[in-house]
Amino acid sequence: MFSVTVRNKDNTKVYMADKGKNLLELLRENEYYIDSPCNGNGTCGKCKVKLIQGTSNQATEEEIKLLGTKALENGYRLACRYNIHSDIEISIDSNDLSANIATESIQINNELNPLVTKVCKVLEKPSLDNSASDFIRLMHGECNNNPLEINDLGLLRNIPHAIRKNNFEVTLLKDSLNIVAVESGNTANTLYGVAVDIGTTTIAAYLVDLTTGNKVSVTSLLNPQKAFGADVISRISYIMENQHGLEHLNSLLIQSLNVSISILCKQTGISAIDIYAITFAGNTTMLHLLLKVNPSNIAYAPFVPVFTSTVKVRARELSIDINPNGTAYILPGVSAYVGADTVGAVLAVGMHQQTSASLLIDIGTNGEIVLGGKNGMYACSAAAGPAFEGANIKNGMGSVTGAINSVSLKHGISYTTIGHTKPMGLCGTGVVDLLAELLEVGIVDDTGRIDLTWRPDSPEQEPLCDRIVSVDGVTAFVLCKASETLSGSEILLTQRDIREIQNAKSAIAAGIRVLVKNAGISFDDIMKVYLAGGFGSYINIDSALKIGLIPKELEGRIVSVGNAAAQGAIDVLNNKSLLSAAQEISKSINYTELSNSKDFNDYYVDCMTFEEI
Amino acid sequence: MFSVTVRNKDNTKVYMADKGKNLLELLRENEYYIDSPCNGNGTCGKCKVKLIQGTSNQATEEEIKLLGTKALENGYRLACRYNIHSDIEISIDSNDLSANIATESIQINNELNPLVTKVCKVLEKPSLDNSASDFIRLMHGECNNNPLEINDLGLLRNIPHAIRKNNFEVTLLKDSLNIVAVESGNTANTLYGVAVDIGTTTIAAYLVDLTTGNKVSVTSLLNPQKAFGADVISRISYIMENQHGLEHLNSLLIQSLNVSISILCKQTGISAIDIYAITFAGNTTMLHLLLKVNPSNIAYAPFVPVFTSTVKVRARELSIDINPNGTAYILPGVSAYVGADTVGAVLAVGMHQQTSASLLIDIGTNGEIVLGGKNGMYACSAAAGPAFEGANIKNGMGSVTGAINSVSLKHGISYTTIGHTKPMGLCGTGVVDLLAELLEVGIVDDTGRIDLTWRPDSPEQEPLCDRIVSVDGVTAFVLCKASETLSGSEILLTQRDIREIQNAKSAIAAGIRVLVKNAGISFDDIMKVYLAGGFGSYINIDSALKIGLIPKELEGRIVSVGNAAAQGAIDVLNNKSLLSAAQEISKSINYTELSNSKDFNDYYVDCMTFEEI
Repeated sequence: MFSVTVRNKDNTKVYMADKGKNLLELLRENEYYIDSPCNGNGTCGKCKVKLIQGTSNQATEEEIKLLGTKALENGYRLACRYNIHSDIEISIDSNDLSANIATESIQINNELNPLVTKVCKVLEKPSLDNSASDFIRLMHGECNNNPLEINDLGLLRNIPHAIRKNNFEVTLLKDSLNIVAVESGNTANTLYGVAVDIGTTTIAAYLVDLTTGNKVSVTSLLNPQKAFGADVISRISYIMENQHGLEHLNSLLIQSLNVSISILCKQTGISAIDIYAITFAGNTTMLHLLLKVNPSNIAYAPFVPVFTSTVKVRARELSIDINPNGTAYILPGVSAYVGADTVGAVLAVGMHQQTSASLLIDIGTNGEIVLGGKNGMYACSAAAGPAFEGANIKNGMGSVTGAINSVSLKHGISYTTIGHTKPMGLCGTGVVDLLAELLEVGIVDDTGRIDLTWRPDSPEQEPLCDRIVSVDGVTAFVLCKASETLSGSEILLTQRDIREIQNAKSAIAAGIRVLVKNAGISFDDIMKVYLAGGFGSYINIDSALKIGLIPKELEGRIVSVGNAAAQGAIDVLNNKSLLSAAQEISKSINYTELSNSKDFNDYYVDCMTFEEI
Repeated sequence: MFSVTVRNKDNTKVYMADKGKNLLELLRENEYYIDSPCNGNGTCGKCKVKLIQGTSNQATEEEIKLLGTKALENGYRLACRYNIHSDIEISIDSNDLSANIATESIQINNELNPLVTKVCKVLEKPSLDNSASDFIRLMHGECNNNPLEINDLGLLRNIPHAIRKNNFEVTLLKDSLNIVAVESGNTANTLYGVAVDIGTTTIAAYLVDLTTGNKVSVTSLLNPQKAFGADVISRISYIMENQHGLEHLNSLLIQSLNVSISILCKQTGISAIDIYAITFAGNTTMLHLLLKVNPSNIAYAPFVPVFTSTVKVRARELSIDINPNGTAYILPGVSAYVGADTVGAVLAVGMHQQTSASLLIDIGTNGEIVLGGKNGMYACSAAAGPAFEGANIKNGMGSVTGAINSVSLKHGISYTTIGHTKPMGLCGTGVVDLLAELLEVGIVDDTGRIDLTWRPDSPEQEPLCDRIVSVDGVTAFVLCKASETLSGSEILLTQRDIREIQNAKSAIAAGIRVLVKNAGISFDDIMKVYLAGGFGSYINIDSALKIGLIPKELEGRIVSVGNAAAQGAIDVLNNKSLLSAAQEISKSINYTELSNSKDFNDYYVDCMTFEEI
């Protein structure tokens, strides 16, 4: 056994490892959330750690290729390629799951008719002339004379104490159909719900006061499953390759949800016992993992999920720490790749009520697109890959502190970072901005090629000259010099990165065109374009148009709507009739499987370049 | 610490006990089921053990009174009075929970429309043109176009494997409303249910083939809670006095149920996984204990149970070892002392469908009485006490092997025992028979007094002369001499025993008269009298009439119907419409609380003697 000392910010811990143990595995087992979009396959270069002490094993080919000789000299190694053969000490960067993501959104549904309600009443006291059971006493007047049937042991067991503790004054909790709980005394003024959007990358949770409908607190965390790959396919692979993989990913998710709930409670001073409803939006795979349902068939054609329907179960069945008699509602989805997050977003922006056509684009790890309105809806999911979330991009990173999120090359080189720190890498909005600017000044041509022969047009462009580099056959644009960055390494956008973005943006653009064709309308008929999701909220719309992510025909009608999926979950919490509306939306959407579409392939090729088509 | 060696038949075990530890407690903790109707209060004298080795502590007053000096000399002690102050070795008699009780009954409901059914179907295979979720594929055609909502995670998690294992051929399990499970392939010919009657004293369980409606196996056990008192009040006291009392009595019951189920499976070679429904009849307290619901308020006026309504929950929620997706149904009851067993019995004998009046008498630990028919039903519960089950009777015992179950004094003294063994004591039917015979020959007079001056009328009565004894002020009739019995002690019926029976029979008889008065009818209007329960099945009807347990006016219309409560549970299993019928019965019964009834008190006094009134 060897000792492995792990330094993480101010925190140092020592672990014992068998000879030959893989370092990434060790870190995962001890719940260090090392970014690892390729799931330990040695292709993404993100699971970098710094070796401070210990024998330096021979670097692998992958490490030489992905890290470069300079980083290796400085002690950096890829955890996934490093097997332990001596006592070592390492330092790691990011182990902080608090995420800095879009948690704001528009809100158009304002009616308050919450999923759970409370009503206080004083029961008739028992006597020898009225010795009806506690349950019948409690239900008196509640059930329209239907024969009473008891289905909830948790509720039943609580009744005798609850009704006697405050002299037969009780507060009933009701969901759409049933009494779900009883509290002693009058507690009708205290009732909360939580709405959650589970993304592949981030989890956003909102605490809602159900007596007013107000959002009272919000928190967001990185999805701890990130350590098992950036995209849903990597997560599914992990499950298929590991006997307890499903249980493991489920338990990581539940832990994070419970952390989120406890943060929400702490921020507001409320007790989790007063939370009686929780709603979930999220992509289809994440919702399978939430319910511990095996999503394997989502990964292969014909991409069949186990469920996309609405789910309603007791929170305790999911081990979620709200009131154990509280109810968990999972919003309905459409298909393996158009999930409840998309349905939630459609609901939140009110597309289903509009007579004119509108377009919703939610770019997360995948790009879900919905076109239509009241008279019919069409949806598809474009496999954009996680490039817009910073993965598959050499210096890409999530939208967290230190990420460059906007770039201008108009007057020399300027950029901003999240948290105003020294830059650590590029998040999606930064990548799009940078690429749009490079196109604008001509450093990248219409085919996406970095022009090594580029010369400035004006003195303002002079500083860009020495930023175009070609080392070991890799052509790149150097956005930040080593001296500017936190790590002391340059931040680059490589030719390969640009190809990734081209693939991603042409998938989205082609998806939009397929739906427009299927709906039999033209771009002119589309009155509104909603950009949803964290990326959609922060993206520079001009840059998105410039790189062709959104067709130029739609210019002027584009609006960012923030985390609309989460807003959908909040809306359902506040208004139970919207749960039926969500079910109607999920049923009425015509799903197009792009991998089965000849049109998509044609458009995809057409949209690859940066020419206007 | 002292060692306690416990010999129980061929089985010897050694336990360690702290100094001063009570012996009954030690035996209970180690799950020896010592008969203990008074729940360790030193009043019933039933928790007898034989001290084989070890220091004999001073006998307590209670032991001297209840065991007598002779038994004490032979080493017998009461476990509840014996605290451990040395290493000891004891032998105990009864630790066998297999019960010899009435498990047969009449059957009038024969329609087969079971609570759960199976249907086999072959699903359409998924393709890129039909990539609907597994759940929607499975539910296709099942749900009348209602929006699908998922409420069962157990079912959901099982779907992907189940539908693919046999190439999309599946068998659906349906209860009245829902699909509850899915099995792979065609298993439609294999489907079982279990019906259980939980009595205070005994548990009877029946395995039913739901494809034919046939009872295929039956088993009965003594209720292991017997160690905590013979009647429901003792059980409730135990719960109120012990922090985990409810959990403990619940877990004893669940263990016994699971033992019963495994016996049923073994007897027939079926797998418990093929059992998808279980129905329960039982008294209100037992059903509270089954569901781990606190029954405390049942013990005190105004006798309010937590529930009497129908309960339908997943078997797994009760930790009952049938298919985890199977459903448990608890039949509805009426009040704290007229339970689901009574409703089940009414259902089984079909009273609710009859236009003329009939009377149902179920004498278990309590005596439940129902009068009426289609046009209205009246019920009460007479606190007869457990005398008819052998408790509170000096040599009383349950209806198990060795119990004297019939007696004749017509030609000398003759009796029969259950199992045809040497006699060990008197069960309820034996007590009633003996008392009727003593009244017939005049040894007991109309007031219930044993006549010490009795003289035989005929030579045949000569052998009875020396059986009337009076020792230490206790007058008794000696049914068996010491030489005839298993224990080597006499079997007596004491004056005090006769008083117990007088109390019990007059409570039943008075209860019947109260209902007849409330219904505004006369005995002549009653066309049929159903005697239900183990005691009711085996009782000599002439003896019951002789002692006035049943009014003489009803002679000629009395029929024994066996364990009708259990038959009701079986009937519901076989025909789900009878569950609604049971609910209707429970709603339509007018309950009379006898403790609140002046009429009852008057009748009770009238019925106490053995004169015809």
